[in-house]
Amino acid sequence: MLRPPSDALLGQLEAMLGPKGFTRDVEIMSPWLTDWRGRYRGASAALLSPARVDEVQAIVRLCAANDVALVPQGGNSSMVGGATPDGEGTSLLVSLRRLDRVRSVSADDKLLVAEAGATLSTVHDAAVAAGLRFPLSLGAKGSATVGGLVSTNAGGTQVLRHGTMRSLVAGLEAVMPSGDRLDGLAALKKDNRGYDVARLLIGAEGTLGIVTAAALRLVPAVGARAVAWVGLENPHAAMALLRRLEGEAAVESFELIPATALALVLTHIPGTRAPLGGEHDWHVLIEVVGSRSADELREHLAIAAADGVIADATLAANEAQAEAFWKLRDTISEAERIAGPAAKHDVSVPVAAMPRFIVDAAAATETRFAGARVIAFGHLGDGNVHFNVRGLADADAGRWLRDTGAEVTRFVHDLVMAEGGSISAEHGIGQLKLAELERTGDPVRLAAQIAIKRALDPRGIMNPGKLVPGTSIVVGL
Amino acid sequence: MLRPPSDALLGQLEAMLGPKGFTRDVEIMSPWLTDWRGRYRGASAALLSPARVDEVQAIVRLCAANDVALVPQGGNSSMVGGATPDGEGTSLLVSLRRLDRVRSVSADDKLLVAEAGATLSTVHDAAVAAGLRFPLSLGAKGSATVGGLVSTNAGGTQVLRHGTMRSLVAGLEAVMPSGDRLDGLAALKKDNRGYDVARLLIGAEGTLGIVTAAALRLVPAVGARAVAWVGLENPHAAMALLRRLEGEAAVESFELIPATALALVLTHIPGTRAPLGGEHDWHVLIEVVGSRSADELREHLAIAAADGVIADATLAANEAQAEAFWKLRDTISEAERIAGPAAKHDVSVPVAAMPRFIVDAAAATETRFAGARVIAFGHLGDGNVHFNVRGLADADAGRWLRDTGAEVTRFVHDLVMAEGGSISAEHGIGQLKLAELERTGDPVRLAAQIAIKRALDPRGIMNPGKLVPGTSIVVGL
Repeated sequence: MLRPPSDALLGQLEAMLGPKGFTRDVEIMSPWLTDWRGRYRGASAALLSPARVDEVQAIVRLCAANDVALVPQGGNSSMVGGATPDGEGTSLLVSLRRLDRVRSVSADDKLLVAEAGATLSTVHDAAVAAGLRFPLSLGAKGSATVGGLVSTNAGGTQVLRHGTMRSLVAGLEAVMPSGDRLDGLAALKKDNRGYDVARLLIGAEGTLGIVTAAALRLVPAVGARAVAWVGLENPHAAMALLRRLEGEAAVESFELIPATALALVLTHIPGTRAPLGGEHDWHVLIEVVGSRSADELREHLAIAAADGVIADATLAANEAQAEAFWKLRDTISEAERIAGPAAKHDVSVPVAAMPRFIVDAAAATETRFAGARVIAFGHLGDGNVHFNVRGLADADAGRWLRDTGAEVTRFVHDLVMAEGGSISAEHGIGQLKLAELERTGDPVRLAAQIAIKRALDPRGIMNPGKLVPGTSIVVGL
Repeated sequence: MLRPPSDALLGQLEAMLGPKGFTRDVEIMSPWLTDWRGRYRGASAALLSPARVDEVQAIVRLCAANDVALVPQGGNSSMVGGATPDGEGTSLLVSLRRLDRVRSVSADDKLLVAEAGATLSTVHDAAVAAGLRFPLSLGAKGSATVGGLVSTNAGGTQVLRHGTMRSLVAGLEAVMPSGDRLDGLAALKKDNRGYDVARLLIGAEGTLGIVTAAALRLVPAVGARAVAWVGLENPHAAMALLRRLEGEAAVESFELIPATALALVLTHIPGTRAPLGGEHDWHVLIEVVGSRSADELREHLAIAAADGVIADATLAANEAQAEAFWKLRDTISEAERIAGPAAKHDVSVPVAAMPRFIVDAAAATETRFAGARVIAFGHLGDGNVHFNVRGLADADAGRWLRDTGAEVTRFVHDLVMAEGGSISAEHGIGQLKLAELERTGDPVRLAAQIAIKRALDPRGIMNPGKLVPGTSIVVGL
């Protein structure tokens, strides 16, 4: 049974970590106790900010000995409240942000070792400085950290070609719930010495230990890139276009955007404008890399237009325009947030099933919930869209969501499960989706997950109440 | 505590499985009770051969209820005794060979679903029939099965470009130690619903459950391939050549072969001849795919020769010659076996460190053990070689190995660990390497592995005495 931290424990931690590494100041802690989406407001007895791996170990050892819960946190950009403590204030928030060194970059091995607190932007810059690149990116790159990206198996807009974090982590170092350090940084391409414990921590949301560093795979720098904006009739046409491009070109991104999402961005994000003149129900943002990418992409799009697969297309004429196209995609979430609350779903189905799913599930949802409007956008080539539902009348959107949101979410998730899909493609489970995971998950998989959690974290101190059903927080006094 | 199967249990199993699925006939069982390398001779109370997944489930449920150990087996081509029971005869051997259907092939999704007992050759053929290919191959492809390949995270000669089984499995179905079926076949490119239990079974050597089917990723068929045989001075030159080719060509295989290994093949394998006229200390077999692969490879090799990186090279003039080159590589193990016993090691170190490791470790081993001769060959681009050591005097090789083999192995493994490497790159642990894993393994990782094993297989019925230290077999009577 978990317990609140005693004054004696807090004193020990303060003495060990010093003023930079320990605070109970409510104003300093406050921004880190609310999640990015503003859905959760947590409390913590103290904010711990270790600057070295041995400090992380000492924290975990002390808290394990005292049955005190720890909530690890990186850039605090979780979409599912994964890094926000509950409201009781009996957990300790552990920020990894001071553990932020890039330990090494090897251009020969195409590897970069970064500590948990290094931001994605820092990793991008270090890779570029070595003449290479780290091929994962997402909107929150300035705040999202390596530890959080690993612990959530982050995706983003380049998964199509390079995979999620799970594909990009060559090795990792972590502090286990015992306080022991797991040294899995050696980047061995082949290692068959049994269960890959280090890899199990990828996507574990801090429930099996605290990731302290990762060896990340780098790829050759992009010599040139071509970015196109395409207008087309429906998601089926978008999939047909993707199939034509696959194998013909190095497609790094293929993002589907409905007219409704573009309209939200144009309304709410300053300095944005539509890339195409005409009106189209659906859009696709494509990025292709390689020295001949622009010519190739122009040629393929011309043929696709001649064949009637797409309606219109334009290539970014320069880097500034390419960035402007990407801004339209990257600010959809922000524009949605400004526009008002919505029931958001991050779902995947098998790739080939996605066009039909988008069309049918949107129709079913809008039929079932009168006045509701679906905006589904995102990573078509990964079989992953963000399927967001809002009430039509903006004034009542908040109330509609409070009254109906949970029912909408169950309805959407049931449609996803009927396709053999996932209710969390890339955002994780955190606390937001825990009940839905319990409701929809395969009981055999859930039972195994719970058994693994209990085996590796028998005291239940690591990020309780997140990801794993049946590990709810019980705090004794 | 495990127990021998009772007559009542054997009767139940026989009644359920019928004559095709149940035998106690010693002659029928015999070939499956010795491992491929002939190092282990096991015993089993019965050979169970289920033909359906529900039969596998029923077997596991019955054995779990009776605390009877199960040893799953595919093609019986383990290099480490991973599918051979101990000699007590208290385990039941479960052959998956009758569960051999290819359930589906989708060219659109580039996916093939095969049952555990389908051989690698069957998978290759089914992929080719769909106009695609499955990019993993190894010498035992005619007998090795999908279940075994998954459970050992098999590698082979195309890992360089396509990865091991872990990269090629899109989903899998398994029977857990409880008898429950884990349905993880849906091939979702993104799924962040917690610990990936299905993936944990990849490389678990049947210790966490029995894999019954896998969804495998296919890749485009090879339009054309170019196969070259290169003579060069040392492993450093080989690595320099690999670095030149990477990024320039689609290198599928890059296999390092010392003159000593080639000589063994030419001596012991009928119908083989050396591809190059002159004598070279080291050789490399390269395969590049793509429509312009032959021209490209010829050009790159010419430049490398002009720059003094390589001494000589020849491209296979046709498919027959390409096959002949590959035969030289694929029969090294067989030639070695004919030549007599050796202390064999399947090791990996970080890729960049491999040339130096091969040279230094061979010198150190030959210095330490007078008369010993190292043959190190294999997957240079994966940082993985087979590092085999034999005594010089052929007549006494068997005795030398019995007297000195274990010491040689400890010596070689210590050199590997000093480089941060792995004592099992691709062959697994099985029973052969269990003591060495316990001696050399990271205690933190081992403790976590043992905890996971106990959590998912609390009765310890799944392939006991393999892979996981501390799960040795204790059978009560």
